[in-house]
Amino acid sequence: MNLSCPLPKLDFDTINLGHGSGGTLTSQLLDAGVFKLLENELLNKKHDGAIFNLEGKVAMSTDTYVVSPIFFEGGNIGDLAINGTINDLAMCGAAAKYLTLGFVLEEGLKMTEFWEILLSIKAACEAAGVNIVTGDTKVVERGKGDRIFINTTGIGLVHPKANIDAENIKAGDKIILSGPLARHGITIMSHRQGLQFESTISSDTRPLNKIVLALLDEFGEKIHFLRDPTRGGLATVLNEIAAGSKLGIDITQKNMSVEEEVAGACEMLGLDPMYVANEGLFVAVVDPAVAAAVLCRLNEWEHGEMASIIGEMTTDHSRQVIMKSLIGGRRVVNMLPGEQLPRIC
Amino acid sequence: MNLSCPLPKLDFDTINLGHGSGGTLTSQLLDAGVFKLLENELLNKKHDGAIFNLEGKVAMSTDTYVVSPIFFEGGNIGDLAINGTINDLAMCGAAAKYLTLGFVLEEGLKMTEFWEILLSIKAACEAAGVNIVTGDTKVVERGKGDRIFINTTGIGLVHPKANIDAENIKAGDKIILSGPLARHGITIMSHRQGLQFESTISSDTRPLNKIVLALLDEFGEKIHFLRDPTRGGLATVLNEIAAGSKLGIDITQKNMSVEEEVAGACEMLGLDPMYVANEGLFVAVVDPAVAAAVLCRLNEWEHGEMASIIGEMTTDHSRQVIMKSLIGGRRVVNMLPGEQLPRIC
Repeated sequence: MNLSCPLPKLDFDTINLGHGSGGTLTSQLLDAGVFKLLENELLNKKHDGAIFNLEGKVAMSTDTYVVSPIFFEGGNIGDLAINGTINDLAMCGAAAKYLTLGFVLEEGLKMTEFWEILLSIKAACEAAGVNIVTGDTKVVERGKGDRIFINTTGIGLVHPKANIDAENIKAGDKIILSGPLARHGITIMSHRQGLQFESTISSDTRPLNKIVLALLDEFGEKIHFLRDPTRGGLATVLNEIAAGSKLGIDITQKNMSVEEEVAGACEMLGLDPMYVANEGLFVAVVDPAVAAAVLCRLNEWEHGEMASIIGEMTTDHSRQVIMKSLIGGRRVVNMLPGEQLPRIC
Repeated sequence: MNLSCPLPKLDFDTINLGHGSGGTLTSQLLDAGVFKLLENELLNKKHDGAIFNLEGKVAMSTDTYVVSPIFFEGGNIGDLAINGTINDLAMCGAAAKYLTLGFVLEEGLKMTEFWEILLSIKAACEAAGVNIVTGDTKVVERGKGDRIFINTTGIGLVHPKANIDAENIKAGDKIILSGPLARHGITIMSHRQGLQFESTISSDTRPLNKIVLALLDEFGEKIHFLRDPTRGGLATVLNEIAAGSKLGIDITQKNMSVEEEVAGACEMLGLDPMYVANEGLFVAVVDPAVAAAVLCRLNEWEHGEMASIIGEMTTDHSRQVIMKSLIGGRRVVNMLPGEQLPRIC
């Protein structure tokens, strides 16, 4: 916790229903806390909405975060919510600029916990260069929520060279994975199961806007599609890409990296890393002519040393994802039918 | 319910955790239901976000709806969520254009209820001329939510003649209230208390975009400020206006209209209508030169026959709201300190 931002003096140690009333207690909570911490020219207006100028092609994305536990190795629900929406915009080829924040707080949430989450939100906004411009705070009775849910909705300008669309995907395109699989999901799951490992596994939550925009600067339209494999994992995203492009996908298991600790945890928990959620990871479908260069840029990125080309698009087996396994067999990779890890993000 | 939109065939009668997995069940729910019902060119892309062109001054607003009960006289959480965000944008002088939808569903929510809410969302979008362009669906375990919470975030273009800002408010400005007080809050409260009245009291949830834009067309910058008195009611909004403008406010109780049934219910429940939530109501602070004309336009509007000038801004008693009561006394109207009606919107 940033010691220069101590918890403000409030009359209560926990959130109560009055904090959601829209009256004095709401004002006190917002003025002493949220507005002061996240202040910027637009938020400071404290109007029902924010007003700003925007010119050009805009992307808009929304996500509600209900992750449980709300604090985990590598982050908490606050930075997860900021990074997640920044990344959804990055996957549209857009640089997140303005975010909104919608809290649903459960009566009894500790002020210190709320404050710690706010500090993470502030840090994540600063790291990614975005502003919270407007927000909303609701409080529900004990037992009608789960401590805190956060909706973040963001808008940003689409990179002038970006043209990200499943319809641009062609047979022969290479599929690049930006890093190792399953870190976020395994972090959450281990936490819930009370598992301890020799070295700590931590969530890969991080903003992807800078690396994606750098790739778009250099490779523009040659980057045909981007998607971050969060809920449902890599397997789900590949199936969505196959369905959207009406092409098939061939992937090679040995090219997908999974950190040793994570792989061990997956085995122990009986989980397939291809179906486990990630947060700071993305899949790029690129023109084969630039695939090697894109991979090279990714490998130079501080979080990209394990990036790799995991497969390619094909006219064979339309809408199906086929994986060549470690032992050389070939199998269909389906979408996850139900829920492997509830409340992962 | 629109009979031309029957509930689609799904494998389950209730929402389960799998519907929030991001996998097959999520796709089934979205493809058979949400995407089909709310379809438009942008939503149909099913990408992580929506991409569109926007030029000029833009307003952005967010709200999470946690109202309980989710169905009530005059509406449900679905149209409430659409109208609420449209109205927040209207209060910025903007015409809502694109909305996002974030669901937090509790395991066990009946599919028929979810479908009815979706139909109301569709109808509210059509009535106001807005599109849902992207969304998110999360499912939480039984007991960790309350059937359904909905976040709606919207953006829209600010009317070229609009200049809505608390700093524009001047002493002498007239304060106009667009209709009778307390309908939404009393509807919700009566429902919770199981109260029945001779005639039915129903929520005033409705979109305010068309009337507000018509007023801006005609009166432009002479409309200095707009605010809808939802949570916290009229008293809270007037206090916010006094604080924002650094001026005082004089209001006259007899000029504020409350329908007879609503007034009776307020008395029975011991509630002051000035603190009860409204949904389809707004306060306009306008130049005195146009006050009579604005009132006239409002009275012509189908929901505005009870609109009235309730008071004016003054340099006396800065930041204080003073009401001349029915019996002629004067009293300070404070902000609501705590919570009068939790979970009202």
